[in-house]
Amino acid sequence: MEREVIPNQELYKLLLPEIFGGSGCRLLVGQYLRQLAVTRVLLVTDERVWQAGWGQEMHYTLQKEGFHVTVFRRLSSNPRVTEVMAGATCYSEEFCQGILAVGGGSVIDCAKGIGAVVSNGGHVLDYAGINKVLRPLPPLLAVCTLAGSAADISQFAVITDEISRHKYVLVSKALVPDAAFLDQQPLATVPMAMAAYGAADILVHAVEAAVSSLASPLTDVFAFQSLRRWSRAIENFHKYRESETVRGDLLLSSFYAGAAFSNASLGAAHALAHSLGGWLDLPHGQCVATLLSGVVEFNYAAAAARYREVAVHLGCWRPEQDEGLVLPALLQYLHDVRQRLGITTDNLGNLQVQEIALLADRAEQDPCLLTNPCWLTRSDLEVCYGRTCRSK
Amino acid sequence: MEREVIPNQELYKLLLPEIFGGSGCRLLVGQYLRQLAVTRVLLVTDERVWQAGWGQEMHYTLQKEGFHVTVFRRLSSNPRVTEVMAGATCYSEEFCQGILAVGGGSVIDCAKGIGAVVSNGGHVLDYAGINKVLRPLPPLLAVCTLAGSAADISQFAVITDEISRHKYVLVSKALVPDAAFLDQQPLATVPMAMAAYGAADILVHAVEAAVSSLASPLTDVFAFQSLRRWSRAIENFHKYRESETVRGDLLLSSFYAGAAFSNASLGAAHALAHSLGGWLDLPHGQCVATLLSGVVEFNYAAAAARYREVAVHLGCWRPEQDEGLVLPALLQYLHDVRQRLGITTDNLGNLQVQEIALLADRAEQDPCLLTNPCWLTRSDLEVCYGRTCRSK
Repeated sequence: MEREVIPNQELYKLLLPEIFGGSGCRLLVGQYLRQLAVTRVLLVTDERVWQAGWGQEMHYTLQKEGFHVTVFRRLSSNPRVTEVMAGATCYSEEFCQGILAVGGGSVIDCAKGIGAVVSNGGHVLDYAGINKVLRPLPPLLAVCTLAGSAADISQFAVITDEISRHKYVLVSKALVPDAAFLDQQPLATVPMAMAAYGAADILVHAVEAAVSSLASPLTDVFAFQSLRRWSRAIENFHKYRESETVRGDLLLSSFYAGAAFSNASLGAAHALAHSLGGWLDLPHGQCVATLLSGVVEFNYAAAAARYREVAVHLGCWRPEQDEGLVLPALLQYLHDVRQRLGITTDNLGNLQVQEIALLADRAEQDPCLLTNPCWLTRSDLEVCYGRTCRSK
Repeated sequence: MEREVIPNQELYKLLLPEIFGGSGCRLLVGQYLRQLAVTRVLLVTDERVWQAGWGQEMHYTLQKEGFHVTVFRRLSSNPRVTEVMAGATCYSEEFCQGILAVGGGSVIDCAKGIGAVVSNGGHVLDYAGINKVLRPLPPLLAVCTLAGSAADISQFAVITDEISRHKYVLVSKALVPDAAFLDQQPLATVPMAMAAYGAADILVHAVEAAVSSLASPLTDVFAFQSLRRWSRAIENFHKYRESETVRGDLLLSSFYAGAAFSNASLGAAHALAHSLGGWLDLPHGQCVATLLSGVVEFNYAAAAARYREVAVHLGCWRPEQDEGLVLPALLQYLHDVRQRLGITTDNLGNLQVQEIALLADRAEQDPCLLTNPCWLTRSDLEVCYGRTCRSK
């Protein structure tokens, strides 16, 4: 029997790791590793998380549970190619069988890079781009210690080449960890500036996923839920360090945004931010938060209905109001958010015109630009940089 | 370093298969099997789905793509122990390396049972209960041809022992398929009565998951989204066979409800329905839909805030209305839904009092009862049966 099938362009997909959530859930890590028959673990973390006690706690706990643990914590924020390759060597020399990342997005991205290299061979930059990591990674677990990147659940990893000062984006479903542990306790020791960058990152993830050309009913439910929880949590952002509720809300918001963007991808703000952040070694949250407003202005006409939904879920516009108010309301909201979170453009204001050309070139190659809701020319990208990164 | 950790009771979890969605996505099955290095496939389906062409189409397509396909379609609705064991024998004799289920909940549950037996050995009823399937199943893909059970994404399988006329419930994360293909095209040939039972099943999944004692922020987002989409879709239920939109909405609603109940589990209506449906070999959707109202009456006081949310998302009560109206509004809504879907209690009305005692005994042992929002005594369970299954 042959049946005629009309191929439909509106195919969509959803892939998430196994999720454990709730205060204290990180202590289930050993049990999970045992189920995977892993006994030798590479614990990837960084100096801050180690000193704050979370890395040490995990090291101690796993050793007590009988695991052989090798600690790798020679990491920068914005993890570098050389760090990933050193981690891969360490993994092999210690005959590790799995990786546990305990840290923020940088730590988890580095762990993903290590995993890609140990199971696929070669150099980590061989896997930059879309769907280049073909073989599954070794077992990879992630305990996220900062609400923001959602690297613990996403298909994305961002690795900086320190020589060219270029951030490479790896997008492959093999980069989704096996399990993510959403535990708000380790967030308690995050410095407030870092927490603010993380919070800003969540918002931009949810907004760009909501308007992405790959958005689907499977990702929308997460993007909008993220915005609702984010707007509630951010009212009490100043209580981040003392309130488990605020941290828990932001961690959930981060998860929802991650579930959306990992499957719908992102947009121009991320493409621009990767290029800028790699060049100046800036916090990612600062870059996306400051660049988003300009992108929304370019995109608005092409995705007005979507941005309206975004504004409704953020609570800055109501359906009974005039539609002409959506864009100004959104821009005002983004401005207020940056103020509230203390995110400035102070250290971005001195790019040379040649640097803007270089950064626009690089942003044009970024995978995140592919799903921006409208086509932005190279000049548009330059304009976005110009508005943010030139003295006013 | 030792850190004191306060164990928290509010741990939660989420596990979903990889999801592909959209009209025609079932044709990605071959590509997915190749990625898993499977070349010999057991195609599990049933006579209705085969005759409607969907089983044949898949058989033909996979053969053309070079797969060795063995068809197993000796299945009843409410799949039986002997059918599962025969399927497992067939799998082994044909040296299959993976299973593709194309059908409704019965077909997919049978495929799960086959998978559990071929990778864990023994008898399928060895795995009845919670977390009994310890070894991973062989690669298992599911193309759902009826919106309702969400067996294609859930941790649940229900197998009937035809001798005792008892439905056994298997709940294990190993039973989550590797990938589910949410394709609304195969739903077009479903008989309307069956579509109605499926639609009713979706609603009860979402309601019971929303009020489950294991509900979490990860499952709530799905439960409430399911209710919103369901209430919209059901308005046009009569267009099920001609409208891709209606079928697509119900399939998504089924997915959302499945994502919720697979991770938050269910409640008393399902416990009662499994027992009743096994005894009288009735459609599951009919059983849950008719039993839910009585359960809501028993549960309401223990989970009033949750039922309020349910009523809001279904659109049968608004927050500005009196709270005393929630329960009557919900019961009226459920009554109207049964009318609209043509679901009656006509063939349920003649249980003997001894049968009610037996069914209550069995319902008391059902895993779904564990997460009902309040404790129901054996007498309560009998009362629920009495109201539905005794002539008025």
